Amino acid sequence: MKFSVFIYSLVLSRFIVSSSDYCEGSSKGSVCSEESMQVSRNLLQATMRAVRVHAFGGPEALRFDTDVAIPEPKEKQILVRVHAAGVNPVETYLRQGTYHIKPALPWTPGNDCAGLVEKVGGEVTKFKPGDRVFTYKTVSGSYAEYTVANENDVFNLPSELSFQQGAAMGIPYFTAYRALILRAKAKAGQKVLVHGASGSVGIASVQLAKAYGMTVYGTAGSSEGLKLVSNIGARSVFNHKEPGYTDKIMEATDGLGVDIIIEMLANVNLQKDLELLARGGTVAVVGNRGNIEINPRLTMVKETSIVGVLFPPGAEEEKQQVNAAIQPGMEQGWIKPVIGKEYTMKEASQAHEDVISNKPTLGRLVIVI
Amino acid sequence: MKFSVFIYSLVLSRFIVSSSDYCEGSSKGSVCSEESMQVSRNLLQATMRAVRVHAFGGPEALRFDTDVAIPEPKEKQILVRVHAAGVNPVETYLRQGTYHIKPALPWTPGNDCAGLVEKVGGEVTKFKPGDRVFTYKTVSGSYAEYTVANENDVFNLPSELSFQQGAAMGIPYFTAYRALILRAKAKAGQKVLVHGASGSVGIASVQLAKAYGMTVYGTAGSSEGLKLVSNIGARSVFNHKEPGYTDKIMEATDGLGVDIIIEMLANVNLQKDLELLARGGTVAVVGNRGNIEINPRLTMVKETSIVGVLFPPGAEEEKQQVNAAIQPGMEQGWIKPVIGKEYTMKEASQAHEDVISNKPTLGRLVIVI
Repeated sequence: MKFSVFIYSLVLSRFIVSSSDYCEGSSKGSVCSEESMQVSRNLLQATMRAVRVHAFGGPEALRFDTDVAIPEPKEKQILVRVHAAGVNPVETYLRQGTYHIKPALPWTPGNDCAGLVEKVGGEVTKFKPGDRVFTYKTVSGSYAEYTVANENDVFNLPSELSFQQGAAMGIPYFTAYRALILRAKAKAGQKVLVHGASGSVGIASVQLAKAYGMTVYGTAGSSEGLKLVSNIGARSVFNHKEPGYTDKIMEATDGLGVDIIIEMLANVNLQKDLELLARGGTVAVVGNRGNIEINPRLTMVKETSIVGVLFPPGAEEEKQQVNAAIQPGMEQGWIKPVIGKEYTMKEASQAHEDVISNKPTLGRLVIVI
Repeated sequence: MKFSVFIYSLVLSRFIVSSSDYCEGSSKGSVCSEESMQVSRNLLQATMRAVRVHAFGGPEALRFDTDVAIPEPKEKQILVRVHAAGVNPVETYLRQGTYHIKPALPWTPGNDCAGLVEKVGGEVTKFKPGDRVFTYKTVSGSYAEYTVANENDVFNLPSELSFQQGAAMGIPYFTAYRALILRAKAKAGQKVLVHGASGSVGIASVQLAKAYGMTVYGTAGSSEGLKLVSNIGARSVFNHKEPGYTDKIMEATDGLGVDIIIEMLANVNLQKDLELLARGGTVAVVGNRGNIEINPRLTMVKETSIVGVLFPPGAEEEKQQVNAAIQPGMEQGWIKPVIGKEYTMKEASQAHEDVISNKPTLGRLVIVI
């Protein structure tokens, strides 16, 4: 990859150069691979391949474009050569144009990604070209060969994790940490129910809760999902498609209920959650797709709380706190993102369909770039 | 009142004595009043007048009994000669027998009251006969001439407040403090909306929020209510019966919304509350009478919280904390309970009808004993 960095610098300084020039001029002296040839051609033209939305709409609104301008990092920004981008439900909401935030068109979706630092802005101090990194937030979109991100949103990706796994770090683990620790204020020894535990945020929640000394209960909608959730550390697992499964959860907690619920589908489960909570318990709402009727008295009787969790981290200080919290887990192996399915950029529409389908999801959906 | 204390001690030590004895034997030497004669008769018989429920049901289930045994305080308990008892919605729920707690019958309702300490158990150290006190929780019910309460649930009533006002201290101010400070964690400088501010918990919430440096907005359902809420310290008041009043609240906060909402009727207002909250805001659910459809996504978008508040204080330490917090306000005059209407014990059914009617309430409903 140092090779392509070199090339890119060369291109930027000279602007016009033939592709054969720098293949021959490489210190490695080897024949250019197809991939590096592609990169070279792109850089020559300062264009790249990317997924873009030209008009809001369904999954088919995701178009695969081959002539997108490579973004230029500003002083405190980093250009990342993306190797894998994570697919999040929020990107489907944004794509539809009905979310509370509406991106300007044409728009490249994508928040999470992992890759190598290609170039840094003049005031960047924490990274240098070639560093393995991940981010949960880009300026220019991550479903693309190159993306620009602010330095403070970029974090080191330890060598223990693949780029695909790196693309599963940002939103899933940052959201899970914020939901569990910062919003629900879970403590060691408490009982945590992860409701929808086989998805990427669910897996992150189970791994964090387990490592922090909580007793984890998880739900999933398929036998494969239940097995996965059990394997990554849940004490007991429950199929949320089975009638009466909440009674089983109450039984498993000796009728006391759970202290914390990480909720991925509040519009379906919130009323039941309020019944399942122990005295003083908290439901952290991480996902929701509609309205639900609840009885607010349930919050009074046991003095429980419902707290909303927004996917991007909040203040700068908090962001660095979450990163500091998850780095050791990545190095030590107790944070281990699970990859559910890989897609090419051309298959982005399918990825969008899958990420919000009601079919069981097992881990992270990733676009490999 | 020292007179009746004296009499009671006399009765308890001697057990049999004619009523003329201690009227003549009084140091004041005056003719016995009808009231003291009644007290004397009761004490002779160790019976008292009290409101009791013999079978769960509507307001008519409240019966006025004249031959109820005067309870005897245990080692760490206090016998209080009740002068005024507060009427709370929760007592109507308990009376119906449909609440999550079902008292044993026959049952004397009533939590709050104020009066004079009549007698103390052997291990009581904080109070002596004759002390002015209030409580938010009794063992034997407060709609009665005498009630027994645990020492730790009894607090000093400063001379600045009447007994009627003392009967408005317990649940209203303890609940308001818990909702505002302990559950919603309101801070000086924040914007607080008290939704239903002319009732007793509402008034307490406005006075506390005002004194603690918050900007207070209040709603009420009548012009008298609005005037009252304004007079006790709200910056702006809104009639919650007027269509579009929530738009006016948003305007009053420059479109930012409020940081804290103290909610007395969540089944009507909760969805609107979630819309009215500023980023990071909290709704404290203090009252609720049914179900409501909400969109949990609203909690996510602004990372807001819904926290339930149960009326009796929690742990012992917290109870003493709340009392410590409100004592200076009572002495300094910034805690000033408003009495809405006074009833006799025979009128208890009417008080129960009024406390949960949808008619505008202005302050505390009190049964004067």
